[in-house]
Amino acid sequence: MERKENEIVPENGKPEIPKDGSICGYDSLHRLLQSSLTPQIFQEVSRLLVGLNCGRALDTINIGEPAKSLSSEHDFDLQAFSFNAEQESLRKPRIVRVGLIQNSTALPTTAPFLDQKRAIFQKLTPIIEAAGTSGVNILCLQEAWMMPFAFCTREKKWCEFAEPIDGESTEFLQEFARKYNMVIISPILERDVNHGETIWNTAVIIGNRGNIIGKHRKNHIPRVGDFNESTYYMEGNTGHPVFETAYGKIAVNICYGRHHPLNWLAFGLNGAEIVFNPSATVGELSEPMWPIEARNAAIANSYFVGSINRVGTEIFPNPFTSGDGKPQHADFGHFYGSSHISAPDASCTPSLSRHKDGLLISDMDLNLCRQIKDKWGFRMTARYDVYSDLLARYVKPDFEPQVISDPLLNKKTL
Amino acid sequence: MERKENEIVPENGKPEIPKDGSICGYDSLHRLLQSSLTPQIFQEVSRLLVGLNCGRALDTINIGEPAKSLSSEHDFDLQAFSFNAEQESLRKPRIVRVGLIQNSTALPTTAPFLDQKRAIFQKLTPIIEAAGTSGVNILCLQEAWMMPFAFCTREKKWCEFAEPIDGESTEFLQEFARKYNMVIISPILERDVNHGETIWNTAVIIGNRGNIIGKHRKNHIPRVGDFNESTYYMEGNTGHPVFETAYGKIAVNICYGRHHPLNWLAFGLNGAEIVFNPSATVGELSEPMWPIEARNAAIANSYFVGSINRVGTEIFPNPFTSGDGKPQHADFGHFYGSSHISAPDASCTPSLSRHKDGLLISDMDLNLCRQIKDKWGFRMTARYDVYSDLLARYVKPDFEPQVISDPLLNKKTL
Repeated sequence: MERKENEIVPENGKPEIPKDGSICGYDSLHRLLQSSLTPQIFQEVSRLLVGLNCGRALDTINIGEPAKSLSSEHDFDLQAFSFNAEQESLRKPRIVRVGLIQNSTALPTTAPFLDQKRAIFQKLTPIIEAAGTSGVNILCLQEAWMMPFAFCTREKKWCEFAEPIDGESTEFLQEFARKYNMVIISPILERDVNHGETIWNTAVIIGNRGNIIGKHRKNHIPRVGDFNESTYYMEGNTGHPVFETAYGKIAVNICYGRHHPLNWLAFGLNGAEIVFNPSATVGELSEPMWPIEARNAAIANSYFVGSINRVGTEIFPNPFTSGDGKPQHADFGHFYGSSHISAPDASCTPSLSRHKDGLLISDMDLNLCRQIKDKWGFRMTARYDVYSDLLARYVKPDFEPQVISDPLLNKKTL
Repeated sequence: MERKENEIVPENGKPEIPKDGSICGYDSLHRLLQSSLTPQIFQEVSRLLVGLNCGRALDTINIGEPAKSLSSEHDFDLQAFSFNAEQESLRKPRIVRVGLIQNSTALPTTAPFLDQKRAIFQKLTPIIEAAGTSGVNILCLQEAWMMPFAFCTREKKWCEFAEPIDGESTEFLQEFARKYNMVIISPILERDVNHGETIWNTAVIIGNRGNIIGKHRKNHIPRVGDFNESTYYMEGNTGHPVFETAYGKIAVNICYGRHHPLNWLAFGLNGAEIVFNPSATVGELSEPMWPIEARNAAIANSYFVGSINRVGTEIFPNPFTSGDGKPQHADFGHFYGSSHISAPDASCTPSLSRHKDGLLISDMDLNLCRQIKDKWGFRMTARYDVYSDLLARYVKPDFEPQVISDPLLNKKTL
């Protein structure tokens, strides 16, 4: 069953209930619950759902007037929060301001490609300006932000959007990095000219001086539903790099990699303090998994996770099929936004809108990562040697699982 | 801050709001939301929160009169649900009825130990009978069900409760296994006489003919807050066994092991279709993590997870400290129950009460595990060879993390 999505969101965040009884058009789960529950019950539900200590909401940050004006003028969601950490005796706080941007594309997919890309640049400019003027230190954009998410089509013409890591999209962002002294993570479709025009799904890490620190290529490629990405690019060959920036150690787990706990683990073992998960995913398939996987990764690995999903519905010129019995269709479904940040102490910000472009800002003291490691000790109780042995055996074709069968079991009756 | 817990739960499941404005005494998150939201909004919230397809609730099972009578006579929560799976062309459904039991202890911790244990036997009898008469195929009890969770005290006298795997507690359950043709998982404190009276935290797997199929010992031991378990027993030496029973392949991830994604993974690699997580955990520390970790494990490993937590507050004769600056105290906090079952398709049952003993029953078609593997392909896209290499390097003392530093970084300014 396809869910209908109403792109019109009422100002008060309350849902409109259409005649067929379905709920659509509400802004976010947080606002839906907040507008529907008494403050006392909302507080307790928040404690259970998003790990806020005794239900106390995260502090909101008072973002300055320039960003607010940009937000209302250009109609994007703007929310800002602050995570708590303990004051330490021997280390100063290491407070970093992180920004996540989610957005829909700007022009129909039938427009000339260069126009489509430039229109996204134009659309993003005020949102990036809002981040910059708000003092964001590390900004992350969504997966393949410089193009429609055309991989559902299996048409190869969309590869034209691919750029080298020092291409036009990187140049566009380098200006902002320099202007605002801001690290920017730019997930693009990459064209690797030095390796025979290989196409990759890549995050470019731009330093706060505008320099390119490095790149990371998506490690796990989906083959599910309309996610026909394996038609376009292969599993990344860059390992699990952690980038040591002016504002902390960061890594990027691109989209479908969030379904793989080992991928999250590897960034943690390499020392990441914030892992960004730029994504493009649709409601019917993944929405109930969306907050679970990110928050679990933050808890299990004692780091912050910034989750970003694009917004809106993209209609392609030629219908395509998924091979799952559905009739042909020209869109991938509704990208439900809902970008949010998870902390190692199991707390979590509210999510951005399910419908609108948005900028989520959050202050976090990176000291919290080590505080949680010291408290819970997952790294010390993890027994990695046991799992190293297991995986070494598992990857061999003749692996025998450890199974203890009931000796009284009559296998014929199974 | 300690949260107050009110053991009195109103019949209608609605919360009582005491004068200080805190919410306590409500029965479960599910019932709190259900009683506070309109049906339409509750439906959409359920879709987002517990992965129910288009918000459609899981089917409830009509449990027979004997179980219902036992539930009202002995005042335990009784809920029963059914997960959905596709009908396949080449395999028959493999529907298994699973039961989880959560309970408080029966006598004060000051009572003679044998009385305490026997009183738990007596308290559990009607709940196990309710499971048996309801046709439960696989039943799991909570961690160290035959004793108070005394490990917070650091007093060694509680080791007296430890039994060999064929001890009195196992014998008690073997009767029910035979009577009801039911596999029973019995998590006990184990005394390993053959290895110099070693103490373990162990799950005994009793086959449906009453035979002991095997045992599994807790792999990861906490050192956090009042969880002073490492004072009593060491990391288990039984690997990650999967037990092939008359009703499917099952495994047991005991309590704190749920914080370790590799532990969940290992049971999956060995072929588990249902992994039980018998636990004993308290509100202030872990309640917001409770649904996240189990559901993430079910999603990431394409199996069902049965999560069990004990109920109530246990007061010990001698106060103890946690070494975390809190004043000495004689209880561990409130064990918040909330047992539930997560499915590989990201759906989840409502949880049992946060306050009352309970029996959660769920039907599940084990074919769903392979269906989800075929759909999402996590096992095939997981690149285990990459992680096998990484872990082999990580466990060496001279491991060097993969870090790419910004060359423009002035390390002195960090």
